[in-house]
Amino acid sequence: MAGEYRPLKTDDVAEFDQTRPAKNSRTLVLSIFFLVTTAGLSAFYALPPYLRGVPAPILADDYNESLKQCASSLPSLASPPAPLNPWASLTVAETVAITEWLNVPERALNLTPGDRGSLALSDNFVFHIGAFRPAKKDVLAYLEDPTPQSLPERHARVTVHHGAAAEPVVRDYLVGPLPVGEETKMRELTEIYHHDHIPFNARGITSWGELLPILDVVGMSDLAEVTQDLFGGVALGLQNDTLVAGAVGPLSFDGSFRRTWINWRRNVPGMYLHPVGFFMYVDMSGTDPSQWKLLKIVYNHQVFSSVDEFLAVYHNGTLRRLPARPDNIDYGWTTRTRPDVPPRDLDYLPGPRSVSFAGLRFRVDFKTQYVSWMGWGMYFGFDRDMGLSLWDVRFRGERLIYELAPQEAIAQYAGNDPMQSTTAWLDRYFGMGGNVRDMLPGYDCPHEAVFLPATTHSFLGSITRQRAICVFEHDTARPLTRHMGFQHGEFGAVKGYVLVVRSISTVGNYDYLVSVSLFKSQWIADDQQFDYIFHLDGTIEVRLSASGYLQGGFWEPSQEGYGTAIHDTTMGSLHDHVINYKVDLDVAGSANSLLFTSTAQEEVEQPWFEDDWGNTAIQQKITRTYIENEDDAMLRFPTNFQGGYALVNREEKNIWGVPRGYAIHAGYSPVHNTVVGSKRLLNNANWARYNLAVSKRKETEPTSSSMWNQNLPGAPMVDFHKFFDGENITQEDLVAWINVGTHHLPQAEDAPNTRTNTAASSFFLTPLNYFDSDIAMESTNAILLSPPTRPGEAWGFEDYGVKVVNCVPGVVPEFEYPGERVYGLDGKPAPPGSAEEVWKGAEMFHRIKTEL
Amino acid sequence: MAGEYRPLKTDDVAEFDQTRPAKNSRTLVLSIFFLVTTAGLSAFYALPPYLRGVPAPILADDYNESLKQCASSLPSLASPPAPLNPWASLTVAETVAITEWLNVPERALNLTPGDRGSLALSDNFVFHIGAFRPAKKDVLAYLEDPTPQSLPERHARVTVHHGAAAEPVVRDYLVGPLPVGEETKMRELTEIYHHDHIPFNARGITSWGELLPILDVVGMSDLAEVTQDLFGGVALGLQNDTLVAGAVGPLSFDGSFRRTWINWRRNVPGMYLHPVGFFMYVDMSGTDPSQWKLLKIVYNHQVFSSVDEFLAVYHNGTLRRLPARPDNIDYGWTTRTRPDVPPRDLDYLPGPRSVSFAGLRFRVDFKTQYVSWMGWGMYFGFDRDMGLSLWDVRFRGERLIYELAPQEAIAQYAGNDPMQSTTAWLDRYFGMGGNVRDMLPGYDCPHEAVFLPATTHSFLGSITRQRAICVFEHDTARPLTRHMGFQHGEFGAVKGYVLVVRSISTVGNYDYLVSVSLFKSQWIADDQQFDYIFHLDGTIEVRLSASGYLQGGFWEPSQEGYGTAIHDTTMGSLHDHVINYKVDLDVAGSANSLLFTSTAQEEVEQPWFEDDWGNTAIQQKITRTYIENEDDAMLRFPTNFQGGYALVNREEKNIWGVPRGYAIHAGYSPVHNTVVGSKRLLNNANWARYNLAVSKRKETEPTSSSMWNQNLPGAPMVDFHKFFDGENITQEDLVAWINVGTHHLPQAEDAPNTRTNTAASSFFLTPLNYFDSDIAMESTNAILLSPPTRPGEAWGFEDYGVKVVNCVPGVVPEFEYPGERVYGLDGKPAPPGSAEEVWKGAEMFHRIKTEL
Repeated sequence: MAGEYRPLKTDDVAEFDQTRPAKNSRTLVLSIFFLVTTAGLSAFYALPPYLRGVPAPILADDYNESLKQCASSLPSLASPPAPLNPWASLTVAETVAITEWLNVPERALNLTPGDRGSLALSDNFVFHIGAFRPAKKDVLAYLEDPTPQSLPERHARVTVHHGAAAEPVVRDYLVGPLPVGEETKMRELTEIYHHDHIPFNARGITSWGELLPILDVVGMSDLAEVTQDLFGGVALGLQNDTLVAGAVGPLSFDGSFRRTWINWRRNVPGMYLHPVGFFMYVDMSGTDPSQWKLLKIVYNHQVFSSVDEFLAVYHNGTLRRLPARPDNIDYGWTTRTRPDVPPRDLDYLPGPRSVSFAGLRFRVDFKTQYVSWMGWGMYFGFDRDMGLSLWDVRFRGERLIYELAPQEAIAQYAGNDPMQSTTAWLDRYFGMGGNVRDMLPGYDCPHEAVFLPATTHSFLGSITRQRAICVFEHDTARPLTRHMGFQHGEFGAVKGYVLVVRSISTVGNYDYLVSVSLFKSQWIADDQQFDYIFHLDGTIEVRLSASGYLQGGFWEPSQEGYGTAIHDTTMGSLHDHVINYKVDLDVAGSANSLLFTSTAQEEVEQPWFEDDWGNTAIQQKITRTYIENEDDAMLRFPTNFQGGYALVNREEKNIWGVPRGYAIHAGYSPVHNTVVGSKRLLNNANWARYNLAVSKRKETEPTSSSMWNQNLPGAPMVDFHKFFDGENITQEDLVAWINVGTHHLPQAEDAPNTRTNTAASSFFLTPLNYFDSDIAMESTNAILLSPPTRPGEAWGFEDYGVKVVNCVPGVVPEFEYPGERVYGLDGKPAPPGSAEEVWKGAEMFHRIKTEL
Repeated sequence: MAGEYRPLKTDDVAEFDQTRPAKNSRTLVLSIFFLVTTAGLSAFYALPPYLRGVPAPILADDYNESLKQCASSLPSLASPPAPLNPWASLTVAETVAITEWLNVPERALNLTPGDRGSLALSDNFVFHIGAFRPAKKDVLAYLEDPTPQSLPERHARVTVHHGAAAEPVVRDYLVGPLPVGEETKMRELTEIYHHDHIPFNARGITSWGELLPILDVVGMSDLAEVTQDLFGGVALGLQNDTLVAGAVGPLSFDGSFRRTWINWRRNVPGMYLHPVGFFMYVDMSGTDPSQWKLLKIVYNHQVFSSVDEFLAVYHNGTLRRLPARPDNIDYGWTTRTRPDVPPRDLDYLPGPRSVSFAGLRFRVDFKTQYVSWMGWGMYFGFDRDMGLSLWDVRFRGERLIYELAPQEAIAQYAGNDPMQSTTAWLDRYFGMGGNVRDMLPGYDCPHEAVFLPATTHSFLGSITRQRAICVFEHDTARPLTRHMGFQHGEFGAVKGYVLVVRSISTVGNYDYLVSVSLFKSQWIADDQQFDYIFHLDGTIEVRLSASGYLQGGFWEPSQEGYGTAIHDTTMGSLHDHVINYKVDLDVAGSANSLLFTSTAQEEVEQPWFEDDWGNTAIQQKITRTYIENEDDAMLRFPTNFQGGYALVNREEKNIWGVPRGYAIHAGYSPVHNTVVGSKRLLNNANWARYNLAVSKRKETEPTSSSMWNQNLPGAPMVDFHKFFDGENITQEDLVAWINVGTHHLPQAEDAPNTRTNTAASSFFLTPLNYFDSDIAMESTNAILLSPPTRPGEAWGFEDYGVKVVNCVPGVVPEFEYPGERVYGLDGKPAPPGSAEEVWKGAEMFHRIKTEL
């Protein structure tokens, strides 16, 4: 262990000019006394004194200090309000039982197992099974009186691709109650949608059965000689292909067609940054691949209607060629391999590490996925579409948030080529939850973080990630409040601890040893880090930061204005990210109103004015109004953030007579989408036009988007604007739909991966006269000083008995990354026949691989 | 030690459902083996196995682990570019020598020592002595070739109150070179001002000589019976006074008069929140106190021209009385005393603590106050006016910032009473540096922070604060970059360490056992926490957060719109804070240009469009322009943050041909001042109208404000707008003047003190194509994973040899707070005759105390 780092040499240590209080300053011997208590053995370990003054931090100034082993670093058991989590995901066993129930002849669904290699578009198969969350009123009744009898009925939402139907269609069904039994029924689930059914052309690219025909259509085999010449690579559908394809969405406007631009890149690590500038427009509408066709080829702004036409121009020498790509074999820059430079000064040492020497201060109930800390308590939910969600968030015994859940994440691009100019991603389709990844202990979360698992299901089976969620207490290293005053009671500080709940989704895949990777195989900032940060005063910061690869474009001068060159022939393309959260606040009860506060300047006269300063004065004034109607509740932050929005309960007042509220306070990068009116995002992400919106809560409006919105901008299954239908929102159960986002104007420093410090956006939910005063003053990790009674003496202090604990921390285990657990449709662990199979399982439907 | 906390009971520990990789999952014995190497003794310490699975964090999974004492927690010695800090503050000895030099008859200054109790307004005295920073070109020459010969001459700036002059005036002088000797000369310093001299009426309230006459003027003795009746208190100028006064600024518009509104509060801890609603307007122009007079008394919107008039109305029973103040003796709520409630769950345990187990990774040179970390290096400066500043900030060997220094902090209030409606504070006058406070180890900065001292001087002597500045490395607990990909080199993370440099100023005093406390004795959010946060990628976040007391007003219904009731008769008053920073960026050299980037949407046609999506597409586009003239460089962030500003060197390009730049990226609360045109802030803080401004750097424009601006809104000594005089700013040495701020609409949770989590504002300086790629990839506190070659195996990883260090950390010393070191004008430690004397020393000129 000790050999892992080079200890500092004594003569490297800086001289301190500063000294400590006189009593110790010159006589101190640095010493530590170990007493290993259980064994009764002890040892004395002394360091030589070598400093003129006494260094300030972390050195012993007592002899005979006995250092014991620190407390367990396991979390204590939490006490959830109810013994079952009403929002729990389905277990593997439940999905297997549902699958079996769906497969029986009485269901008449004519299903083909989704994991069958021969699965065709014209087959029916179960695309997805997930928990359907119960109605709020039912859950509240259960939480009020949590008995087995009051537990809401459990239902699954089952999505079936009806490729075999006369009119192929995708349908959602509600199956329940669970567990599967006599009572279990299914019905079509339509009340949460704005259209009766999901067009078959709105689906993504799901199975191998879709890829082979596309490869036939694009004709890369016929182009091998040309692509070798132009791009230094080929895509023959073999294992050693040197070009690889990606496709962009949306695939459709309203379900009437299904088309994509395929673009080609070098098949190297970080391929996202290796586009070659070669594009093909493909029609793949309907279920009959024989009807699919290549519509266009585009190369260097030249448009060809067929492979033959392109070949003819190539061979007759009139093709205007792109600049040569000099970095033919250089792909180190698109990997995370450390450059071969000397380490930075002292970087061979590990940085500081946070340790709860006295034991963790948050509690966890692993069975229900419930966590509590310092008066906060919450259940976790997890789903395929958007991953982690928080439920029944209470603070100091009072429910504050019923549901806090990401809803959708858009990324809309711009460019002067067919790929970037037609891209508008909606990540709910790809599955923020299905694409959650095991986090890296010590890198993604501190070493002492507690990890919780999540399981998601797809047509191929189930995956459990043991480290899908992490929870840890974090010292922000700044006091939450503090003041220095000379009067008794004025001087002190409350430490700024927070609880962080985190999940990271990597939406954007990569195909290992792949021939053709289609659809969403390119993506910027694909590691979305969802943080929920709970403060002692009742504040929550909801923060999203992003890392990962850019969706790179081919750089040539006509791309000016659409991004920045980040390598010889690679550009980062301009795009906006906007991510929507559902925040079902219940502020002092569920009857809430929307308060709009604004400030402006006024000119006033006062009877006490003198001539000296003039007869009028200019100053600020606050205007407070309640927004009464949903139609007026699609909102942008005021210019210069002069004022803002809050949910308040007008009938519940704090002791000073002010309605209790929670404000929605802008954090980092409080932006909305720049572009309005693009057909590729016409009506399927209308929430992105605002910073936030507030609507009356309805069971029929559970989410601001749906996975099908990706490919239906003209006729979305969930049209957010339809939530706003003139209803009064005074003292109603309200939902705030709040956005974070970033305008990404890429730059050289985005390679290899975007940095989370500036690619971050957040909002705060913070008490607004919700309390009578700052309740963080309750904290005992705090100090209160009192002035000395005699000059020269030190100040007195009250630390509430909470002292630094000096002890020997447990050993941090060696890093390891075992990977996901994969289960087949039968619920049995999928025996990994090969590493590839495991990864395929890990990536599920989202990772599409084919080798001809 | 161990007795300080209750260890968790084993049966409290949560059950883990999660398991670890198969090889260890059921057989692991939790054990720790200590080998105290120096003594050669060892002990075996085993814990029983009690879990089904294996808990994730911090438990040993190896036998025979030897835990050694951790490395020293002293910082290593830094190597500054030059052995002397050209921006160093004056030492106490230097100021004593200068004082002596000024006092000799040849100077003909006719000075009275500032610490003399009998000091009169009609005396001349030295108000302040501080270092005057040398010219940039001289410093750059020295840094280029740091020899004793090339060291720039050292000068002091000396401010003298010429009360004895025929036309009393305040003057600044330049005294040097230092050390004092044959060559030393003095001359008036005027080139940095926009007026020739400082009006005597622009000074603040400095000495006892000013207070006695004011007490005469206000006539509180005559009002004792009335104030006892109306407010339950008296102010007789005795030690047991129960009312205390404060005054507000500005005192003057242009120096032609000097007047203030005095307001009265209860003399209890947290008096800022105990106003009684009683106001007096006092004229104190000129040097002859016998001319000073009471102009007005205001009570409950009734205006009286004299004490007699007020008494007459009071006695004839026509006075309209304010609502009674029920909280006569309740002042617990305005202290930081913890409320008497049970602690929060597990709050009896100390929270997590950050430990650099392998030793600190930043270096310090205490002599020069130079710090380096991970390629960053910087000198510290410190001055009375604005405290901590950073100089010659280099990253990876290249100068990035010549000077980074706060300039001014305004707070402009609104209200329906004479106090709040006339308040506009400029804190430079009061001295952010002079009012810096020793920080609280473990509360204001982490335990292992390194503290640095600062010394400031005034007319009373000098003060050294040992903990004026703290420096620490902090784990943000989130990766700076990370990506999960399945291709070799795609999966990994860089840890998000940052270096934090912090100082906290408490501007806003409190008089202990005081009769009359005048001027700036009230102040909101008076603990200003200045953070400079350095990231591995070259980004700096400059962050200011605030805590402390509100400047409370008296709450009655006519105050609606000017704040919020936070107690029976106390309100928090609406106000804006804006704080300006000078950022003298040198981006790849000192010749820089100002790049404005904006984005907007466009409608385009492309030859490759099909009918399916229409003939045009709407998308974003970037416009990049250079702002060529200073007059166009007073800037606000674009609406919706669509674009922004950067300083770039047009002639220095990165390898991809893009000009190297640094962007000014909005952080938390990117606001400017709301009010424009108020006479009380007419022209003395014009920088506050913008988010930022960029001007050509000049030695005659060292600061955007001056301490005299406080009382000269109509004729400021430094008029920021005059910096912008039509000069071209293309490839010039430029300064960015950047604001942070908050709109403070107070709320109940501001009592007792404002919370730093939402009362925070920041901006980022972040590389913009400054590098060729993300240079944080150099970090070796990073990991790179590689996919397993055989299914079921764990992923391989490269951690660059940087492992977690498991060792026994040094003991954290007990908390103590010794207080400042005070020196008299003679440079000798001021012997504290009483505790009060010490505090008086601590507060210096800013703390004004008188007892009649």
